[in-house]
Amino acid sequence: RTIDLIADLGESFGAWTMGRDTEMLDMLTSANVACGFHAGDPRTMAATVRACADRGIGVGAHPSFPDLVGFGRRTMELSAEEVHTDTLYQLGALHAFTTAAGVRVQHLAPHGRLGNLAGTRQDYAEAIVAAARDFDPGLTILAQPGCLAETARQAGLDVALVGMADRAYRADGGLVPRGEPGAVITDPALVGRRTVKLVTEGQVEAIDGTLLDAPVDTILLHGDNAEAVEHARSIRHALAAAGVTFVPLGQMSRRAGNTP
Amino acid sequence: RTIDLIADLGESFGAWTMGRDTEMLDMLTSANVACGFHAGDPRTMAATVRACADRGIGVGAHPSFPDLVGFGRRTMELSAEEVHTDTLYQLGALHAFTTAAGVRVQHLAPHGRLGNLAGTRQDYAEAIVAAARDFDPGLTILAQPGCLAETARQAGLDVALVGMADRAYRADGGLVPRGEPGAVITDPALVGRRTVKLVTEGQVEAIDGTLLDAPVDTILLHGDNAEAVEHARSIRHALAAAGVTFVPLGQMSRRAGNTP
Amino acid sequence: RTIDLIADLGESFGAWTMGRDTEMLDMLTSANVACGFHAGDPRTMAATVRACADRGIGVGAHPSFPDLVGFGRRTMELSAEEVHTDTLYQLGALHAFTTAAGVRVQHLAPHGRLGNLAGTRQDYAEAIVAAARDFDPGLTILAQPGCLAETARQAGLDVALVGMADRAYRADGGLVPRGEPGAVITDPALVGRRTVKLVTEGQVEAIDGTLLDAPVDTILLHGDNAEAVEHARSIRHALAAAGVTFVPLGQMSRRAGNTP
Amino acid sequence: RTIDLIADLGESFGAWTMGRDTEMLDMLTSANVACGFHAGDPRTMAATVRACADRGIGVGAHPSFPDLVGFGRRTMELSAEEVHTDTLYQLGALHAFTTAAGVRVQHLAPHGRLGNLAGTRQDYAEAIVAAARDFDPGLTILAQPGCLAETARQAGLDVALVGMADRAYRADGGLVPRGEPGAVITDPALVGRRTVKLVTEGQVEAIDGTLLDAPVDTILLHGDNAEAVEHARSIRHALAAAGVTFVPLGQMSRRAGNTP
Repeated sequence: RTIDLIADLGESFGAWTMGRDTEMLDMLTSANVACGFHAGDPRTMAATVRACADRGIGVGAHPSFPDLVGFGRRTMELSAEEVHTDTLYQLGALHAFTTAAGVRVQHLAPHGRLGNLAGTRQDYAEAIVAAARDFDPGLTILAQPGCLAETARQAGLDVALVGMADRAYRADGGLVPRGEPGAVITDPALVGRRTVKLVTEGQVEAIDGTLLDAPVDTILLHGDNAEAVEHARSIRHALAAAGVTFVPLGQMSRRAGNTP
Repeated sequence: RTIDLIADLGESFGAWTMGRDTEMLDMLTSANVACGFHAGDPRTMAATVRACADRGIGVGAHPSFPDLVGFGRRTMELSAEEVHTDTLYQLGALHAFTTAAGVRVQHLAPHGRLGNLAGTRQDYAEAIVAAARDFDPGLTILAQPGCLAETARQAGLDVALVGMADRAYRADGGLVPRGEPGAVITDPALVGRRTVKLVTEGQVEAIDGTLLDAPVDTILLHGDNAEAVEHARSIRHALAAAGVTFVPLGQMSRRAGNTP
Repeated sequence: RTIDLIADLGESFGAWTMGRDTEMLDMLTSANVACGFHAGDPRTMAATVRACADRGIGVGAHPSFPDLVGFGRRTMELSAEEVHTDTLYQLGALHAFTTAAGVRVQHLAPHGRLGNLAGTRQDYAEAIVAAARDFDPGLTILAQPGCLAETARQAGLDVALVGMADRAYRADGGLVPRGEPGAVITDPALVGRRTVKLVTEGQVEAIDGTLLDAPVDTILLHGDNAEAVEHARSIRHALAAAGVTFVPLGQMSRRAGNTP
Repeated sequence: RTIDLIADLGESFGAWTMGRDTEMLDMLTSANVACGFHAGDPRTMAATVRACADRGIGVGAHPSFPDLVGFGRRTMELSAEEVHTDTLYQLGALHAFTTAAGVRVQHLAPHGRLGNLAGTRQDYAEAIVAAARDFDPGLTILAQPGCLAETARQAGLDVALVGMADRAYRADGGLVPRGEPGAVITDPALVGRRTVKLVTEGQVEAIDGTLLDAPVDTILLHGDNAEAVEHARSIRHALAAAGVTFVPLGQMSRRAGNTP
């Protein structure tokens, strides 16, 4: 079994640093790279893309609502046309840095609140998929099961399903919202066991004990601080110990996300 | 004799409108399109590129210092790396809209103060040329004679020389700076005659009466207001009456800018 | 009978101009001045405040969601704390210019989407009222009847009710939303008659023919273009012809908004 | 002998954190608070001002060139009017938060590149001093000896001279520029001895061994990281051990800066 390991990178801005990107680069096979609307100035983008290219890490665009001070986490009531053109703008900006580094944009993963909304709003899902298709029909759309994944598949785009190693699932396959009890799983050993099961069996135990089918193509890791990096490392070790190998999304022969 | 006619387009931003783009579209063969750092939000960029593509107008990137409130007209002491990465970012963003419209970015013309400085600062000229080459070695660099044109030629990039229809020239080939007496020529008939001479004979009379060699590949028109549009139209008429034909930079077989 | 005449001013930004402020200055007694978050750079603010101070026009803060490219017209899901601190920031910024011009900030009128939401969202109304009270309890809150007006009164702040000369009212006192048939009244003579009735009798005929009580302290005029300015002028003439006199909100002895 | 201890605070922005403000609050008597143009969103400003007010720390405005991505460290060729209005805007914004917290803006200290230039550019010094005087003639101007201090004194404003505990001085009283050998003094014991001499005797040994008169009203501390905080603490201890007491600029009876 192969899996992709992914994290959000390049979320520094100007004089401000965020995330332990250097450490994360050692364990990832793909990265969601901020494109300037919630984080990621041009220097950060250039350095992040270069670092990924040097290590064979697949680079993905991580477009956001235009909200630097809110880090793209606040709902903004954009029109579908605004989502479409904002996504195109950010995709293109990242593409300049991948081109300069001799690689391609591998995938598209909407950030933060835009990503959440694209999972449920048909107009936003369509706007994002249209931007991807207009720009490069070879782009993979990274999503959880939901509106964006469905719309991308129908449009003929490749889809990669992302699994959350440290989040509890509801019985219907959705995530338990942050803030609810048990939403985030903090025991590293448990997170490791759940991730191995997710990757090797495509199943996860929901918060009510139900065993869910949850096909995944990539596991989202976090590198916010030293503890998060440690967790990420232990997840990678658990997977390796279970015989899983790591490969960027763009080099996977067959992806779960493409099968509805 | 053929010539390109060019103007700055897409300099609106959000709810603010600037320039008479619709009227200018009828007379141009190329356009410098704002990329978001001094003007040009993603909707404006998408609509401007689409309008150019529909009419066969060559689309160029018009990157700027990051200074929306100053419209890119104020000197900013950026490092060469900052100019390089800011230019890449803006080039890529525009490329997304040309790709969506089924065309290519034809040329690169730095805007405002960045453009002025690139004519004299070797480090900025190199940073801009490196961005162009990193992104697409087929890009033409639009410049006046000077540091940017020279650097681009040495790097093997195509260069197009821009002539200013309404500006007085010094005997050394430079422009008389705005603000000095006689810097801007306002008599439409005179502007027309000068432009025809510039295009058909490659010569212009300097402010001291000297006859200068001034090879040009494109004539910069302005569409700021009704009077400017009228002037632009009369320049085009004067050229057409002299038997000149109009063709985008990207379709010219041989350009003056490529011969030092 | 006295009334205040008000309009949004200072909505230019950098090189971009919006609105016919110079013409509007001749007919207003108060102005809502943009504070930088949706429009209004510091030069525009300084010049607008100075022009108002020179003419005895009352200056009000027109704070917005932080959304320059969207002109503050898009819903943003800010927390109440974010609304509170963003409002304080903008109030203070305007206060610097009124202080420099030797006058005071007279009132506070939230702009665009923030203003709409403050009419119905209790948390936003409270955040805005708290900002006003924290900054200067002598500030008048400008509002339509609704949540913001109510909250301001309960907090002991003066309230001024704004009447829309050119908008249709529903029978419940709310405005017919833009986009619905008949929402905007375009016949200048009718707008004039309605405004006179609104000001002299405190009544307006709703879209279903009902006669509504609609107390007002100020009439909102528009200066977007030549036609709007003409309408504004005809409204002022109609009021003057009916014997109404014009006085800034800050000089009114008694205001309808203060009586629930 | 009394002295003020000051540092730059509130330089976080949105989701990005900068500086160890909480630890610094325990040792400061004044703070330069970022006002949104290089750092400091409204939430950060509100929290920083509140924390200062709670501890009796004097709050100063730290206005900057409008350059978030460059952290106000890059030269921008603003007109004097632009410096004047940008300074007013930022002063006012901070004033809203001090008013809400029941205190006043104590001083004005231009940030980064604007601060450097105000020390040598007469037009910028005048623009900043005019903004201070327009806003509140009771404001103290914080400066090193130079153009800004001189201009402020001539305008009748109070001046406070800032001493750099960890920087080498040239024989002419200026600082050895960063990047030159010996510019920054890293030995904590040496920094401590120099600071005590600066505060108690008003003298410092220049890099060539000359003993300089260097009157100071405040010592600039740094809180960028754990080591910087440690240094700051040891400076405070050294001063306390020498019998120096700490008092905010606004409570000093007589300041060296006011004597040319």
